[in-house]
Amino acid sequence: MNRLHDEIYELNQSQKKLSLVDTETRNSLLLKLSASLVEKKEEIFRANREDIRAAESANLALPLLKRLKFDEQKLSSACEGLRQIASLKDPIHAVISQKELDDRLILTQESCPIGVIGMIFESRPDALIQIAALCLKSCNGIVLKGGSEALRTNMVLTDIIKDVSRSVLPEEISDRWITLLESREAVTEMLELNKLIDLIIPRGSNSFVQYIMNNTTIPVLGHADGICHCYIDEYASVEKAVRISIDSKCQYVAACNAIETILINERIVERVLPDLAKVLRSAGVEIRGDKRVSSLIDCVEAVESDWSEEYLDLIISIKVVADTGSAIAHINTYGSSHTDVIVTENREQAEFFLEAVDSADVYWNCSTRFADGFRYGLGAEVGISTHKIHARGPVGLEGLISYKWKLRGDGQIVADYSGIEAKSFTHKDLL
Amino acid sequence: MNRLHDEIYELNQSQKKLSLVDTETRNSLLLKLSASLVEKKEEIFRANREDIRAAESANLALPLLKRLKFDEQKLSSACEGLRQIASLKDPIHAVISQKELDDRLILTQESCPIGVIGMIFESRPDALIQIAALCLKSCNGIVLKGGSEALRTNMVLTDIIKDVSRSVLPEEISDRWITLLESREAVTEMLELNKLIDLIIPRGSNSFVQYIMNNTTIPVLGHADGICHCYIDEYASVEKAVRISIDSKCQYVAACNAIETILINERIVERVLPDLAKVLRSAGVEIRGDKRVSSLIDCVEAVESDWSEEYLDLIISIKVVADTGSAIAHINTYGSSHTDVIVTENREQAEFFLEAVDSADVYWNCSTRFADGFRYGLGAEVGISTHKIHARGPVGLEGLISYKWKLRGDGQIVADYSGIEAKSFTHKDLL
Repeated sequence: MNRLHDEIYELNQSQKKLSLVDTETRNSLLLKLSASLVEKKEEIFRANREDIRAAESANLALPLLKRLKFDEQKLSSACEGLRQIASLKDPIHAVISQKELDDRLILTQESCPIGVIGMIFESRPDALIQIAALCLKSCNGIVLKGGSEALRTNMVLTDIIKDVSRSVLPEEISDRWITLLESREAVTEMLELNKLIDLIIPRGSNSFVQYIMNNTTIPVLGHADGICHCYIDEYASVEKAVRISIDSKCQYVAACNAIETILINERIVERVLPDLAKVLRSAGVEIRGDKRVSSLIDCVEAVESDWSEEYLDLIISIKVVADTGSAIAHINTYGSSHTDVIVTENREQAEFFLEAVDSADVYWNCSTRFADGFRYGLGAEVGISTHKIHARGPVGLEGLISYKWKLRGDGQIVADYSGIEAKSFTHKDLL
Repeated sequence: MNRLHDEIYELNQSQKKLSLVDTETRNSLLLKLSASLVEKKEEIFRANREDIRAAESANLALPLLKRLKFDEQKLSSACEGLRQIASLKDPIHAVISQKELDDRLILTQESCPIGVIGMIFESRPDALIQIAALCLKSCNGIVLKGGSEALRTNMVLTDIIKDVSRSVLPEEISDRWITLLESREAVTEMLELNKLIDLIIPRGSNSFVQYIMNNTTIPVLGHADGICHCYIDEYASVEKAVRISIDSKCQYVAACNAIETILINERIVERVLPDLAKVLRSAGVEIRGDKRVSSLIDCVEAVESDWSEEYLDLIISIKVVADTGSAIAHINTYGSSHTDVIVTENREQAEFFLEAVDSADVYWNCSTRFADGFRYGLGAEVGISTHKIHARGPVGLEGLISYKWKLRGDGQIVADYSGIEAKSFTHKDLL
């Protein structure tokens, strides 16, 4: 085995001791980390300036440069984040259920860390601090891989986290619960380590996340596509339909929860389409309509591939459907199970839509852009999942939590509960 | 696309309508199924007799023949099972959390089916009835693959389920929520359908389950190996140590929760080993000991591969360890994260073990054979999972359940919650 395997093996072994470290120690580490970041801020800023200079020479796009920047303001909110995470209730050792199986045979289902998390994130160095803090709080080990353009900043931040860890955690864990990978090749190697890494959380472009999902047998928490829909029902308020469509498309066009397709009930299309098209156009949005839409307004004619494309841009496809059932069928076929909304004043149609659309987030009369951990009040957001296993939709700290069954007995054996004179179980709930 | 793809696509589309079928209708289907099985029992028994005759000609082992048999007694317990499942609370539409994000903007986290379950099971035809019933109860679609030796019986049972479904469920679902695959090749095809199947639950030999896990990107609920350990601590009661070891090894030797290795603290080995070896031998168990064990008793000397082998037979490996920490390190390295027990009268050692052993089920002073959905009082057992994602350990009906976020608003858009005059969220818990 190679160096990376050995390092992650050590990390895996050390992680298993993390949940023995008491809450106070873990929280004090978070607070000391906050102090240490402030103390060493010049070192961080210097590394960040180098990253930014290199990124500017490489002509990195302005929004990416903005995300890459780590300044006083980012530092201050990172420190505030650390204090908040320190103040959260301990997510592990929570008793989920407790049952007496028989006299002096007590079964306890208790929350525990998942184990080792592989986190692949984008160019924001402040994300590194938050992710590491959430993992430490929940006693998970972490293998980090940030964007190469942020490598210098990420290395300094990781070094600071490791320094504080060595001073606070017991020798048998020390700083071995966290590591930063430096190369893309290391990611490929990491995807093979299904005995050592328990969950991968990738953030990045669709194709990158899809690549991760297709190339590992480690469970992946996340989403590739975000093909979201707004369905304007026969009974919609035209004013709400236009407001919600514009916000869902344009409030932040590159977001995964922005819509790509508007479906319009044929009984309302002539009333809603002119207003809608006018407002979309004045926001600079290109419209790709099906035959019916093209017959009503001047637009590009949509082709089949438009219904499954995530534009992440000022482009929208519009299709006319016969009824709510057809809208649902379209969404369940072409959508990505992320976030979809119905605009209607009719409760029955709304509830039908909310039930039958098989997406993580299903909305009635509000913008799809609400699909977000902060807006949901989850505290920190670990990611948004379009899977139905483990955690779905915006995922907070609970996405890093599993559970185990502790059974405490006094010498009981199963043979006594089988056969003719079998003892029986009491199965008495103790919670 | 081929015939199987099209059939499972139809099944997937029909499943999305299942959660619109009310609880009463689903329960009445379960009760009608029970009546119909009794009515058509001669047809079932006839097909089963043919399966058994063919299996006998093929010299199938006796325990397998016993499992294959479907007679009056199996019928009666299958019908009792259906009544029990019908009487369970509806597992879907349960409100998990509810929060006001703002005035008239209510977020509800609600339980829902996972979607389409691919279930690959062994030769017990009664398992087919239970699995189908659990899926219907939880509004999941199901793709079944049973053992080929039970094919005739399984076909008759599936036909009966389909008949009752046609008579009870709405036309747009009818009998299209369930299908039985007939060939092994169909399983290979099924593993590719990651857009149509949401979860695979395989039961069978280790190598078969491992094959499934390595050959699909669909999440898998289950376990391959069951390498379970009994650690006899320095402070163990010798009597309990012997009782628990024997029960954990011999009560049902082919079970996944039977132990394969006993670890003994070096400070107690001379006191416990003679008794233990005597009782193991009188139960017909072959002992493979490490150097220290071999120096104390007459036994086969263990080799490195013994520590990671699931014998599923009357063979056990025994190793002497320095302390609880070494036992934990051994288990976390060689074990399969299934079920492990410490025998000790020392609470501190016990709690250290329960916390640091990274297995689904961690026990103190009782047999590993308790790791089972029935013994845990879960009602039906869907499977035992050694993964830490979704569900862990013995998994009941909740293993077939996911959730979705329903957000009901009145025209709210995200733009109103951003910028200078931003509205703020109330995030008020309503439960």
